[in-house]
Amino acid sequence: MKPTLTHATRPLTFEVDALNENGELLPTSIAGENPLTLYVDKCEVVTLMTLGQAPEALAVGYLRNQRLVKSIDEIAAVQVDWEVNAVAITTRKGVKGLRERMKKRTVTTGCGQGTVFGDLMAEIESINLRDDVTLSEEGLYALTEAVRRHETIYKAAGAVHGCALATNEGNASQIITFVEDVGRHNAVDAIAGQMWLEGWDGSDKIFYTTGRLTSEMVIKAAQMEIPFLVSRSGLTQMGWEIANRTGITMLGRAVNKHYLLFTGKHRFVKTRMPTMLA
Amino acid sequence: MKPTLTHATRPLTFEVDALNENGELLPTSIAGENPLTLYVDKCEVVTLMTLGQAPEALAVGYLRNQRLVKSIDEIAAVQVDWEVNAVAITTRKGVKGLRERMKKRTVTTGCGQGTVFGDLMAEIESINLRDDVTLSEEGLYALTEAVRRHETIYKAAGAVHGCALATNEGNASQIITFVEDVGRHNAVDAIAGQMWLEGWDGSDKIFYTTGRLTSEMVIKAAQMEIPFLVSRSGLTQMGWEIANRTGITMLGRAVNKHYLLFTGKHRFVKTRMPTMLA
Repeated sequence: MKPTLTHATRPLTFEVDALNENGELLPTSIAGENPLTLYVDKCEVVTLMTLGQAPEALAVGYLRNQRLVKSIDEIAAVQVDWEVNAVAITTRKGVKGLRERMKKRTVTTGCGQGTVFGDLMAEIESINLRDDVTLSEEGLYALTEAVRRHETIYKAAGAVHGCALATNEGNASQIITFVEDVGRHNAVDAIAGQMWLEGWDGSDKIFYTTGRLTSEMVIKAAQMEIPFLVSRSGLTQMGWEIANRTGITMLGRAVNKHYLLFTGKHRFVKTRMPTMLA
Repeated sequence: MKPTLTHATRPLTFEVDALNENGELLPTSIAGENPLTLYVDKCEVVTLMTLGQAPEALAVGYLRNQRLVKSIDEIAAVQVDWEVNAVAITTRKGVKGLRERMKKRTVTTGCGQGTVFGDLMAEIESINLRDDVTLSEEGLYALTEAVRRHETIYKAAGAVHGCALATNEGNASQIITFVEDVGRHNAVDAIAGQMWLEGWDGSDKIFYTTGRLTSEMVIKAAQMEIPFLVSRSGLTQMGWEIANRTGITMLGRAVNKHYLLFTGKHRFVKTRMPTMLA
């Protein structure tokens, strides 16, 4: 049974005036940013700063990635009220030990949300990504082309990061969902929430992010059981180490027909011959 | 009396192999990322994911920006030990109510560290930035040129954000310190820590960031009493609103000789004439 949901999207861009170097007053689009406080069964959990594109999915994905709920079936309702910048999540049977867990939480904050770091590192040891799926070079290029053509808040206003979940079928790839937010980790959490809400299986999909591949980003992709992680940006040492440990197929600097394949090379199929050198 | 400090910088870049689209195996520099758990008088406060360029200043600046200590004089020692990924901060007289404050903390997480959001919004009302200082267009261009010439981890490995504190003297500007980190908020906190440790006054300086001007970034610059905030990137609606409320002089998209002046226009002096149009 699906949870009851609001659909309370916020205005995503605003226009302000700015003076440029030529002395011209330019109307300039800027991205929205809103505080959203999560309450689980009336217990305050966290305040996220969000663009507000998919607040219900963000709330669900936050609870999923923080391991506060184990299945979407535990959630009865997700109700966003922008009058008070709050989202009320009602569970069917309560979250065991929620108040105690809130007290002892440690937040990791590379550039992202609080996560219980030690627990996550232990958990990645138990993740087994599918090894019977491959990504072809043509499929990767189909993805970067789909991303290039996608209409985004980033193109209009900048100051946001985007994440996408995409199919991987032969040499084709289609964007299933694309979420943007002021924080990279909000965007990935919102996609985790949508996957639960829509019942999407990640085990043959591609996860794309405009942001950097830090430890938390790699951990979250692996937790969603997604074997392919693609970024337009670079990576950090811990992102690389965790990717190696989980065996995820991770590509960075993926723009147009360029990429760097870092880990999980066994799932990547090079369909084009290297340029012949004279 | 200055606190006792370690100087425990981590290796900032690592080299890994990556396969590119031409089938070449390329040695590729990636940025370091390390968990660093802060203990204040043996009470665990937070775990930050950091590049590790200036961990002592990061710890001090985190405590400063979280308002856990009110003055550098309260801190007796800052000791980083990478063997256990920890920094031990010893205060002279203890932090009143520290354990209680850790329990009731709410984290805001647009793309950054936990901060007590409501308290911060109240505090910005009380900030008065200096109005007897100006920034000239030539001074701004001197800053963007200094940033362009600065050697950075970003140029070598990507995946980090940088923040700088710079002088503003007539039509000149020099970088006093430049800190990079995997999270934007770590870089700004490290500079806040250095300002305290070195006794630097921010009230006539420029704060530069490669990152986006979100609410937390603007709040932190204003808290450091810095009247000029310059970014290579864009801004969010809440960043703009808070900048307006504090009256900070905020410029975005500042690269080479381009910029957008958003707020605090009274402190900006345009030294060049607009291009004459025939």
